[in-house]
Amino acid sequence: MSPLDGLRVLDLGQYYQAPYAGLLMAMAGADVVKVEPPGGEPMRRRMDGSTSYPQALLNSNKRALEIDLKTPAGRDLLVSLSRSADVLVENFAPGVMDRLGVGPDVLRAQNPRLIYASGTGYGSTGPDRDGLALDVVVQAVSGVMSVTGEPDGPPQKAGPAVADFLSGIHLYGAIVTALYERERTGTGRRVEVAMQDAVYPSLTSNLGSLHYGGPDAPRRVGSRHGGLAVTPYNVYEAADGHVAIICSTEDHWRRLCHAMGREDLLDDPRFDTNRHRVDHMQETDDVVLEWTRAHTRDEITRAARKHAVPAGPVRDLAEVMNDPQLHERGMLEWIDHPELGRIAAPRSPLRFQDVPLAELRPSPRLGEHADEVLGDWLGLSRDDVTALESAGALKRRRAASA
Amino acid sequence: MSPLDGLRVLDLGQYYQAPYAGLLMAMAGADVVKVEPPGGEPMRRRMDGSTSYPQALLNSNKRALEIDLKTPAGRDLLVSLSRSADVLVENFAPGVMDRLGVGPDVLRAQNPRLIYASGTGYGSTGPDRDGLALDVVVQAVSGVMSVTGEPDGPPQKAGPAVADFLSGIHLYGAIVTALYERERTGTGRRVEVAMQDAVYPSLTSNLGSLHYGGPDAPRRVGSRHGGLAVTPYNVYEAADGHVAIICSTEDHWRRLCHAMGREDLLDDPRFDTNRHRVDHMQETDDVVLEWTRAHTRDEITRAARKHAVPAGPVRDLAEVMNDPQLHERGMLEWIDHPELGRIAAPRSPLRFQDVPLAELRPSPRLGEHADEVLGDWLGLSRDDVTALESAGALKRRRAASA
Repeated sequence: MSPLDGLRVLDLGQYYQAPYAGLLMAMAGADVVKVEPPGGEPMRRRMDGSTSYPQALLNSNKRALEIDLKTPAGRDLLVSLSRSADVLVENFAPGVMDRLGVGPDVLRAQNPRLIYASGTGYGSTGPDRDGLALDVVVQAVSGVMSVTGEPDGPPQKAGPAVADFLSGIHLYGAIVTALYERERTGTGRRVEVAMQDAVYPSLTSNLGSLHYGGPDAPRRVGSRHGGLAVTPYNVYEAADGHVAIICSTEDHWRRLCHAMGREDLLDDPRFDTNRHRVDHMQETDDVVLEWTRAHTRDEITRAARKHAVPAGPVRDLAEVMNDPQLHERGMLEWIDHPELGRIAAPRSPLRFQDVPLAELRPSPRLGEHADEVLGDWLGLSRDDVTALESAGALKRRRAASA
Repeated sequence: MSPLDGLRVLDLGQYYQAPYAGLLMAMAGADVVKVEPPGGEPMRRRMDGSTSYPQALLNSNKRALEIDLKTPAGRDLLVSLSRSADVLVENFAPGVMDRLGVGPDVLRAQNPRLIYASGTGYGSTGPDRDGLALDVVVQAVSGVMSVTGEPDGPPQKAGPAVADFLSGIHLYGAIVTALYERERTGTGRRVEVAMQDAVYPSLTSNLGSLHYGGPDAPRRVGSRHGGLAVTPYNVYEAADGHVAIICSTEDHWRRLCHAMGREDLLDDPRFDTNRHRVDHMQETDDVVLEWTRAHTRDEITRAARKHAVPAGPVRDLAEVMNDPQLHERGMLEWIDHPELGRIAAPRSPLRFQDVPLAELRPSPRLGEHADEVLGDWLGLSRDDVTALESAGALKRRRAASA
């Protein structure tokens, strides 16, 4: 048994935010049906209805329907499905589902147990409600960019889609919270997460630097400590790339001196306390750099581990994708995807003791499971589905056969 | 009623990861008791036992105990508390709680309904289990740094503590999932989230660029599109700062031309399709820059909104902290903190329709609620607590009176 076994989810998500919440539900055992418009969600339309690599990563273990919500029959079909669903999750712009006639009030009136979950950019209320919210725009508006980059360079985006994914996992959290509540009250709720809200807490440390440093606090510090108050704390060049080394306590520094074979520095008045090192920040970094440049990332990481110094290699994505730890734990697994070939598919970061890892099923083709899902959920026959198809409600598609 | 009303949580978290999960539970209505070692968690010890600004942001609406788990009486007290708790959350290094004699097996044997939640760096299993995992180290190892920074510069950290907070909210998700399951099975579980696992999905788009671009794909692109396949897509200098502008469709570009008053570009063969613009990426950026440099962030954002172009100002943290949208929605609220004065305290990004926002209570002083919590949870009298204090189990502290 998995924690969400038996749960029925309609995932109308697009791109990253809501589909990620749907993925986590699927990996925890829920029956997640990905509902897409004709031609597929935007990440498929770019590929002429086929899957894209990012789309595949976020839609494993889901089944797929292609429903035209702009037809009365399509709307009716979604209403019927939502009557039999526990959760509906979407991340259209605020108001889109209402305009289609399948907003939260309509669907929850039919099924008060339904949890209706919306991912938004800025929220479904407030002056900025209708702002266009792509990850990078939210990174700008929410402060992420202002604290990323070199001190003398422009503000910069964080490489990962932090606003999309921070909000996607918060959305999962809101949904499951409402499910827990429903077990006790019998009633579902509408829940919501805004990207901008979800980003704010991740800036806690930076906000601390602002609080203590005031308007003159450094905004961007490259890879140094946010408040320029701790050193060594940086990314250092190695013989074959880069390493991060962080000495957040005096012990870390002393152990680093041993790791570097530089016991001579232990009593050096320039370096003997963090305060002195901060006063000689570039000199401190140069001392570390002298060591790191002469060794490989592996040599540095092994020495650091031996001496219990927080450090790690800067790894590129190909290395991460092949990481033994991620594969050993089953966070990643190589699967054969019918459209993409061999890919490292992620499972879920949520681990439940004694629950076997979900068996990975490749992301579905557009509309692949019309007969199967409508049979399971609504008891419809193949003829019923054919009638719906004739009425323009949905399209049937062939299963994958790459 | 809030969704987690009546739930009892022991929050042994330190720094960011587990305390954030605890904050979200408190904001959803749970009774969250922050359990700290003598002298307080590390973020307090830096301030001689008082709170720090980051600590205050993550510990609103919790009550506080100071328990010495290195004494038999302290261990017994934690066991008693966990018998009456629904959730225990911690993010010590793997094995620490076991060595203290209060690991998951011990506590769950006493209370099978307990959900025991661990935040880790790399997981409680696997070859990297014991690696020291600070946010910045995990950013290095997990690939975040490799995709952040300028193309010709070194890898760089993302400004926010993305590994800490992505894993903290995943940990919340795992806990509530187990709570939902417990409503149906009657039994709790051990759950776990590793920082490295939690980061991986946020790199989905970057992994896509690697998949399609192969080993020659750009690793770091500054603030441009990850695959250098879409333009305009960048951070542009404005008269008074910077703005992000993203044209992810041809419509966006056409509307941007109107917003810029540059209808002459609509038929320019260098710019008429995204493919042509990508072939002239610097020229395209220069055209946009010519416009943005001549206007303020506000003027640009208003023009972009009028023409439905995804764009936003790059805001610094002081601006974000005062954002009308965040305050109107109650994501932030100004409170008077007894130790810090006036601060903008965050609530939770999780929104539940018809549930009033939690009334904010400032983060507690170390050990502030010994009598209150032990009375509520265990029915102990003041004399009982005095006896525990004499046995070295805990310390009583005065309430705040700054």
